[in-house]
Amino acid sequence: MKKKNEPVSYAGYLQLERVLSSQSPISRERGVSAHDEMLFIVIHQTYELWFKQILHELDSVLEMFREQYIDERNIGVAVSRLQRIIEIQKIMIDQVRILETMTPLDFLDFRHFLTPASGFQSFQFRALEIKLGLSPARRIKYSQQAYHTLFSEEEQTRLLEMEKAPSFFDLLENWLERTPFLVLTGFDFLKTYREAVEKMLADERETVQHNPLLPDEEKQSRLQMMQANEKHFQTIFSEAAHNQLIGEERRRLSYRATLAALFIHLYRDQPILHLPYRLLSAVVDIDELLSTWRYRHALMVLRMIGRKTGTGGSAGYSYLKQTAESHRVFADLFNLSTFLIPRSQLPALPPEIEENLGFYFSRSKK
Amino acid sequence: MKKKNEPVSYAGYLQLERVLSSQSPISRERGVSAHDEMLFIVIHQTYELWFKQILHELDSVLEMFREQYIDERNIGVAVSRLQRIIEIQKIMIDQVRILETMTPLDFLDFRHFLTPASGFQSFQFRALEIKLGLSPARRIKYSQQAYHTLFSEEEQTRLLEMEKAPSFFDLLENWLERTPFLVLTGFDFLKTYREAVEKMLADERETVQHNPLLPDEEKQSRLQMMQANEKHFQTIFSEAAHNQLIGEERRRLSYRATLAALFIHLYRDQPILHLPYRLLSAVVDIDELLSTWRYRHALMVLRMIGRKTGTGGSAGYSYLKQTAESHRVFADLFNLSTFLIPRSQLPALPPEIEENLGFYFSRSKK
Amino acid sequence: MKKKNEPVSYAGYLQLERVLSSQSPISRERGVSAHDEMLFIVIHQTYELWFKQILHELDSVLEMFREQYIDERNIGVAVSRLQRIIEIQKIMIDQVRILETMTPLDFLDFRHFLTPASGFQSFQFRALEIKLGLSPARRIKYSQQAYHTLFSEEEQTRLLEMEKAPSFFDLLENWLERTPFLVLTGFDFLKTYREAVEKMLADERETVQHNPLLPDEEKQSRLQMMQANEKHFQTIFSEAAHNQLIGEERRRLSYRATLAALFIHLYRDQPILHLPYRLLSAVVDIDELLSTWRYRHALMVLRMIGRKTGTGGSAGYSYLKQTAESHRVFADLFNLSTFLIPRSQLPALPPEIEENLGFYFSRSKK
Amino acid sequence: MKKKNEPVSYAGYLQLERVLSSQSPISRERGVSAHDEMLFIVIHQTYELWFKQILHELDSVLEMFREQYIDERNIGVAVSRLQRIIEIQKIMIDQVRILETMTPLDFLDFRHFLTPASGFQSFQFRALEIKLGLSPARRIKYSQQAYHTLFSEEEQTRLLEMEKAPSFFDLLENWLERTPFLVLTGFDFLKTYREAVEKMLADERETVQHNPLLPDEEKQSRLQMMQANEKHFQTIFSEAAHNQLIGEERRRLSYRATLAALFIHLYRDQPILHLPYRLLSAVVDIDELLSTWRYRHALMVLRMIGRKTGTGGSAGYSYLKQTAESHRVFADLFNLSTFLIPRSQLPALPPEIEENLGFYFSRSKK
Repeated sequence: MKKKNEPVSYAGYLQLERVLSSQSPISRERGVSAHDEMLFIVIHQTYELWFKQILHELDSVLEMFREQYIDERNIGVAVSRLQRIIEIQKIMIDQVRILETMTPLDFLDFRHFLTPASGFQSFQFRALEIKLGLSPARRIKYSQQAYHTLFSEEEQTRLLEMEKAPSFFDLLENWLERTPFLVLTGFDFLKTYREAVEKMLADERETVQHNPLLPDEEKQSRLQMMQANEKHFQTIFSEAAHNQLIGEERRRLSYRATLAALFIHLYRDQPILHLPYRLLSAVVDIDELLSTWRYRHALMVLRMIGRKTGTGGSAGYSYLKQTAESHRVFADLFNLSTFLIPRSQLPALPPEIEENLGFYFSRSKK
Repeated sequence: MKKKNEPVSYAGYLQLERVLSSQSPISRERGVSAHDEMLFIVIHQTYELWFKQILHELDSVLEMFREQYIDERNIGVAVSRLQRIIEIQKIMIDQVRILETMTPLDFLDFRHFLTPASGFQSFQFRALEIKLGLSPARRIKYSQQAYHTLFSEEEQTRLLEMEKAPSFFDLLENWLERTPFLVLTGFDFLKTYREAVEKMLADERETVQHNPLLPDEEKQSRLQMMQANEKHFQTIFSEAAHNQLIGEERRRLSYRATLAALFIHLYRDQPILHLPYRLLSAVVDIDELLSTWRYRHALMVLRMIGRKTGTGGSAGYSYLKQTAESHRVFADLFNLSTFLIPRSQLPALPPEIEENLGFYFSRSKK
Repeated sequence: MKKKNEPVSYAGYLQLERVLSSQSPISRERGVSAHDEMLFIVIHQTYELWFKQILHELDSVLEMFREQYIDERNIGVAVSRLQRIIEIQKIMIDQVRILETMTPLDFLDFRHFLTPASGFQSFQFRALEIKLGLSPARRIKYSQQAYHTLFSEEEQTRLLEMEKAPSFFDLLENWLERTPFLVLTGFDFLKTYREAVEKMLADERETVQHNPLLPDEEKQSRLQMMQANEKHFQTIFSEAAHNQLIGEERRRLSYRATLAALFIHLYRDQPILHLPYRLLSAVVDIDELLSTWRYRHALMVLRMIGRKTGTGGSAGYSYLKQTAESHRVFADLFNLSTFLIPRSQLPALPPEIEENLGFYFSRSKK
Repeated sequence: MKKKNEPVSYAGYLQLERVLSSQSPISRERGVSAHDEMLFIVIHQTYELWFKQILHELDSVLEMFREQYIDERNIGVAVSRLQRIIEIQKIMIDQVRILETMTPLDFLDFRHFLTPASGFQSFQFRALEIKLGLSPARRIKYSQQAYHTLFSEEEQTRLLEMEKAPSFFDLLENWLERTPFLVLTGFDFLKTYREAVEKMLADERETVQHNPLLPDEEKQSRLQMMQANEKHFQTIFSEAAHNQLIGEERRRLSYRATLAALFIHLYRDQPILHLPYRLLSAVVDIDELLSTWRYRHALMVLRMIGRKTGTGGSAGYSYLKQTAESHRVFADLFNLSTFLIPRSQLPALPPEIEENLGFYFSRSKK
């Protein structure tokens, strides 16, 4: 667009002529101009611009994690870029308020022109879901319409390719599996962790059983709760139990990766685990904000069109609300908190390991 | 506390000596001071202060609506106060971010001291739910624990009294039922509305049926969707159908009140309907934000304690998530959008009525 | 772009092909791709999209106010549209956080490519300032560069035309001047207001002078403050005093318009003044948010480039900070609070006027 | 309050009986109850609660930095706590919106009761300013009233003690001065940095001078700007020049500390500098948000009381606006960006140093 050496201008650099002439309200074309259609177009365009930016960041992070050996310097960069995604997501959620200044009645002034277009046709959003790691199997079908009516053939091909490539979920899982912490000389994480948990649970039970102030009924109810918690812990002590839950689609992250993530959470005060911990936190933030955005979006749709079918024929509100819950990719990281134990109960790391954790990542050093 | 005529001081006015000395971390008392417990206390105290403020506003609005004759001046005041509740709710949601700077592991440093205290014991929040109109029947039970273990006897008495008094839902319903619009001389709203809807639906069907570009399969699928929409409309045309849905607990607002609300939505461009419309909008905003807050809160809890039982013995995350969906009080107002029709299809009001509904500011009028 | 009758698709409707291909980082073209340049482009494009939307709303409001007779229905619509501008502005301010995820060092990776482009070349922002009513005379010069180096000739012509057309400030002033409240049968606003103020000030002085608890020194200081306040009031009692302040560029809004705005503020509880009051409030909100945005922007620039000159040669931070203060258009409305008096001191409106100003919703009037 | 072993209740734990009974509107006491006074009290109480929390975090950080040797583990913790302060500040800014739902007229209903109380009497806010490092000499006097009328004797004593203790500014300066980066074997940071800058500036000048497309006038103007930038750089090359600026109160941070901060900014991609960089960034964030809060607060005051004197006799708006600019504590860190140079121009660290930077903080090893 711009010739080399030509001085850069603000409008030229941002290609404003194109960007700002890309709003053509259909209602205007049809001669019944609806004032609010401009907002509808503009806000969707900003969403798509933000999706582009999120993909730009995510792609660069995926690139880093595709490497066999990940330089610690890159973990820092990856965290910053995920942090940027997080800031964008916050704006995406808050931005819904702008759209809500359009009232349902104002929407009706042009809504009928939009059929059968639908937000579900957002290629970038679909790409984002796939790259994060939402597998086609876990995706809720949104209508009877087949996949192919939503996207052009070329787009479908590209989406299928993305589905074949390792997602952020896959790469993060690999990275976690490769971390060297779990069995270090003279330290078996799982064993010491299990002992600490069992001691903690036994102590708790004892405290309840011997509390003279607790009425019997209350005692029973507390002991029942404890049993439930103990059952949760059993599932992390045994690889077989974990894998069975994977079989039932109630977990997804591999056993080894789960243990590594747990280790990072428990010992995150160690300098070397600082960045890995922030990385996992950022991933959970992204998942949480995406879920919040879906929920917020669902409520807005409910408010805007009520129980009517969406322009693209989707089930509208109920579909969107369901995805808020089910399309969470990193639920396993969320659930990790189930397995945390207080620092005071945490087995100390052997000193030689603690020292080791002071610098491992940036090694190439003895 | 302050003697009359004594000059007011900032600290005295705000009773800061009391407020700022009301944080006593248990972990400190027990000699194992956990840095983050202060945040936990302070943020909950700010939430309770905001609840107090919300109740202050809501109570004043309830007062106004208890009057048989509601001065329109008061509608303006009521809207402003609901608007203030809305701004507070936005902060309550955003504030969750502050709590999320506490990591799950940091929480474990003092969490065990809190048992069996629980956020479900918030008297003010319970009062808020009741005053908005969450009926005991619709409330999800949050644990096996009986109601009485949560509140003191005196608190229970007060809550039961609140449950007997008319809630905001009840008062709003009454007010809507009393509005004089539905049958005005020479204008039967339901009849003209129904005719307009039926014409609109017939036109839509015709357009689809005679569209030569639509493949047959697509045509069938569209016609099916239309039928679903038509069914929705049937439920608003007939009082019996509406009442049956009330019987099935799928609707709650009385037929007459629902029609009045619909009228306000459809003709809100009339000056006199401006404030009533803003009132209904504010109510929906409050419901939506409360729901968003519950959802946000649920996610935060999931992240903080995983699938563990809450300190008070509640089912934690799953319970909270369910309330986000089910404890919506004004769902009927949300759903009104289902019955809106485009302005272009809206029957015009007879001129004498329109004049009645108007008033003029910058007149020089006739 | 789209043929008539062709079914609308999401991507086609939003012209995503154009919008999403309008990012061409110069650093990439030059072979030294800087990851963060994409963010820089995208965020500026979203700002420009929001400017377009704000102008869309503002233009429609200007249109309404250009009419000699302004239907009150339109005041309601105008308020909603200004409210939308407000929501957009909030996002524009919060969005700065996203840009701040780019560190100063990352910016340096591509900043040198941008010279001499500069945000001051934003045509839309300039148009916004002009349409709101920032007069060329009051505009702070941002650099030695002449106006014409910033915009193309065609753009300059359009800007000059805008400067000639009545701005929102002008139109609002006209509208206020035309309001019929100030002298109504049997009610002279200025006279009764002045009497009320003078009584209030006399009472205050008396209270201080006869307070036995106040030390003499304190008494003197309070009386001095009161004198300052009294001086402020003098400037509103006299048209000549007001006009002198206009001559000194310390006020801008005409005397009659100022009085009308004051009347609206003081008697805003009257139903008929509800919307006019909201209109004035929204205008102040917009001015305040614009000022906050400029300030936030200035801080961000300081942080990003320090005390260096901007890419376009502007004085960077100091210039921007100054505009936050001086480019306020509706400062006179801000200052109105100086002249408010408590409701308890407010002269009652004669009943026949009060009835005139009212209208009734929930009865079946007369 | 609570007996040992007594089961903890929500209300007891949060001392709600005290907290929620600490609101006594004066207008109510005086028999002219003003509805909005409750909001005024509650919002100020939440601000004070947040101040308490901020001080809790800041104090714990100051404690860490008082140590001669700062464990890197602690830098991580310090960053998290500063991050929490940042999240609180964001809420403090957004919360202003809640107060703005109170209109100026509503404020007048109870404002006169508050004299002479004033927000300037907030002990905690004053403590915060002192602990951050706002020196008494740099503080803008806010009125003729002497310091002692604002605080009780006991409070004054405590404030004076705080002023004597090392502030966060002092401790951060010390910490920076102690960093071992600046002269490492075989690497003289200042020398290599200076060479890089001079080469960069020479290149820039050359590019402009030989650009055939630039008109002469433009060339001159660009060269002038460059000279201004070069002058900035001179002040960082020479300790004497830097110290002179300190003498003129245009800089405050010591030369050595400034160089260390610059080093951290320039080489922050090195793993070991990751946390120090985040620390400096967080400090700048806090300063920026405090400044934004002051500005936002000033605008709100202007809007609420116009140009009137504050209840405590302060100059109100103009005073507050000035502090937004002048009470910035870490302006030197803001200004660091002036001295950054692009990564592409950055002298590479000698390999042995780079390796050294991989682990230095966590050693005391070997």
